[in-house]
Amino acid sequence: MPVRALWFRNGALSILDQRALPGRTVVRQLRRIEQVAEAIRTLAVRGAPTIGVAAAYGMVLAHRSGRYTPGRAASLLGRTRPTAVDLFVGIEAVRAAWAAGDDPLRAANDYRERIVDECHRIGEAGAPRLMRCHRVLTHCNAGALATVEWGTALAPIRVARDRGARLFVWVDETRPLLQGARLTAWELARERIPHAVIADNAAGHFFARGEVDAVIVGADRIARNGDFANKIGTYEKAVLAREHGVPFYVAAPWSTFDARRRSGASIPVEERPEDEVLAFAGRRTAPRRSHGRNPAFDVTPARFVTAFVTPGGVVPPGRLAAALQARAAE
Amino acid sequence: MPVRALWFRNGALSILDQRALPGRTVVRQLRRIEQVAEAIRTLAVRGAPTIGVAAAYGMVLAHRSGRYTPGRAASLLGRTRPTAVDLFVGIEAVRAAWAAGDDPLRAANDYRERIVDECHRIGEAGAPRLMRCHRVLTHCNAGALATVEWGTALAPIRVARDRGARLFVWVDETRPLLQGARLTAWELARERIPHAVIADNAAGHFFARGEVDAVIVGADRIARNGDFANKIGTYEKAVLAREHGVPFYVAAPWSTFDARRRSGASIPVEERPEDEVLAFAGRRTAPRRSHGRNPAFDVTPARFVTAFVTPGGVVPPGRLAAALQARAAE
Repeated sequence: MPVRALWFRNGALSILDQRALPGRTVVRQLRRIEQVAEAIRTLAVRGAPTIGVAAAYGMVLAHRSGRYTPGRAASLLGRTRPTAVDLFVGIEAVRAAWAAGDDPLRAANDYRERIVDECHRIGEAGAPRLMRCHRVLTHCNAGALATVEWGTALAPIRVARDRGARLFVWVDETRPLLQGARLTAWELARERIPHAVIADNAAGHFFARGEVDAVIVGADRIARNGDFANKIGTYEKAVLAREHGVPFYVAAPWSTFDARRRSGASIPVEERPEDEVLAFAGRRTAPRRSHGRNPAFDVTPARFVTAFVTPGGVVPPGRLAAALQARAAE
Repeated sequence: MPVRALWFRNGALSILDQRALPGRTVVRQLRRIEQVAEAIRTLAVRGAPTIGVAAAYGMVLAHRSGRYTPGRAASLLGRTRPTAVDLFVGIEAVRAAWAAGDDPLRAANDYRERIVDECHRIGEAGAPRLMRCHRVLTHCNAGALATVEWGTALAPIRVARDRGARLFVWVDETRPLLQGARLTAWELARERIPHAVIADNAAGHFFARGEVDAVIVGADRIARNGDFANKIGTYEKAVLAREHGVPFYVAAPWSTFDARRRSGASIPVEERPEDEVLAFAGRRTAPRRSHGRNPAFDVTPARFVTAFVTPGGVVPPGRLAAALQARAAE
C-alpha cells in the first residue's frame, strides 16, 4: 500500500505524525492554522515538498476560520522553518488565490496534485540512471513521507525497481533525528526493497570498498547556480562521492528550485536545539555540562552534483540556470 | 582530577566501566581472565592502548589462577577484538615474560607505564602543532579513557591548553556508540576545555565554513606505509580535511604501529552486531523488518595524513617506515 504523508478531508488536514514512526502509526487531524504551524515546527510533518503542501492547507484552514488576512496567515506559516523554499512556494500558491478571491481549497488541492505529479515524473526521469546500479546510497528521507507521495530521491528507486532493476539501498541513519533509520527504512521495508541502515559514519567505508554505485538525495532549496541545501550530512556524502567517482544525483520538484537565488551562500540554514544532539528519547547522552551545535542543513556546492533529477528531465548543474529560465518563460 | 581508565591493586584489575559514562561512574573489579576478556569484548574497557593494558593484566590474572598456560591465556584474550593491534602487543609483553619465568605483574606494570609515558610524550610532541589553532576536531574518544591516562589525540590538546593555547574542540558524537558525546565530552567537561558535541553529519558544514583549523584522532592500527584503521567515520573526516586544506594528525603510541603490515588493505575490520545501529538503549529505532550493517572501523589511506604524532615526535607518512625501522634497530 502506498504511503501518503497527509490528506485533506471534512475540513481537516490529516497528517501521519512522522515523529512516531516507525514504531507507531499516528494520524493527527489539524483544524486550525496554528496546529499546522506547530506540526511543521516540531517536525510532525517534514520534508520540503510535504511541508509546502501542509502549509498550503494551513492557509485553507486560516481562510475558513475567518480570523486571518491572507498576509497574516502567510506570515505565521512562513516563520515555522527557514530553509526549505517549498514552504514559501506552497504558502504563496494559496495566498495568491485567496487574495484574488479564488477558492483557497482548490488552489491547495491543485498545488498538492502538482507536487505528486512532479514527483512521479522525477521517478520516470531518474529511473534510467539507476537501472544498472546495484547499490544506491540515500541520506535522510526523501520518500513519500517527505513529498506526500512517491518521493524525490526514492521515486527513481521505486520506478527502477518496478522496471526490474535489482536495487539495494544504503540508508544513512541521518543523525540527529534518524529520518533515514526511522522513515526511509520504513518506506523501503513496506515495499520490500532490500536495504541496510548504516551509521552516517559508515558511508565512507562502503565508498572505499566500491560498494556504492550511485548517491541520490532530495533537497530543501536549490539556487540558480546549482548549489543546494539539504539535510545536514549531505555535503559529506557529496565530497565522498566525488572522491570515489560515484555519480551524485539531487532529485526535486520545481518548488524546491529558488531561481531568484544566485548561489548557496545566502541560503538560510536552520540551527535547531542542541538537545536533539545531546539527548536521545528524553534521555541525556552527553555530560550535563557539555554543549552542542545542531545545524539542521548544509549547503553543497554545485560542482559536486552530477545532475539534478527534475520533473522535466535530468539536468546537469551547468545547464540548470538555462532550464529554469526556459521554464519561467513558458 | 585526572581520569584513569583502570588500575591493578590487591590482585584485581579495576576498570571504569565506560558503558555507564557519563551518567554514572561505575568501577568493576575483575579477578579472572575471563572477566577481562568479557570486559574488552563488551566495550566496558575500550580504546586501543587501554585494551592492550587491560589484556596485559588479564594475562597476570590467568597466571595467578594456575589454570592457564601462557599460550592459552594469550589466545583467549586475542579472540576478543580483531582490529586494534595494541591488544596483541599488550598480551605479548606479558606472555613473553611469563614464558621466560619472569614476573608477569611486573611486565604488565612496565607495559602500562610505558603506554602512559608515551602518551605524555605524544602530548609534548603534538602540542606545538595546536598552539595556533582555535578549533580542533576530534572523532571518537582518544582520551585518557582510551589510553589509561593522558590520551593520544587529547594529549596534545591537554598540553597545548596547559601552555596557554585557547582551544575549542569539536566533538564528533561518533555513532553508533557515541564515544565522542559520552566519553570525550566527559573528559573535556571535567577539565573545562571548551567544546561542542556535533552529529558526525555536521562536521562537513563546519569545515565548509572555515571553522575547523585542525583534526586530530587516535588509531587502532597503523601499517608501515601510514594507512591506518580507526573508529568508523574517521575516513570521512580525513577526506573532508584534505578537501578543505585542514591538517589531519593521527596520534598513537608505538604499540599501535604494526610495522610488519605493509598497508592498510589487510587490516582486519571488526563488524559488530547490527543492533548497535538499529536500536538505542534497548529501544528499537529502525523498523523491525530492516537490517543494518555495522563496521566498527574504517581504514584511511596514508595520503590523507598530514603527520603522525608519536612518542618520538611528529612524523609525516613518507618518513614513517624509516622511523619504525630506526626504532626497531635501537
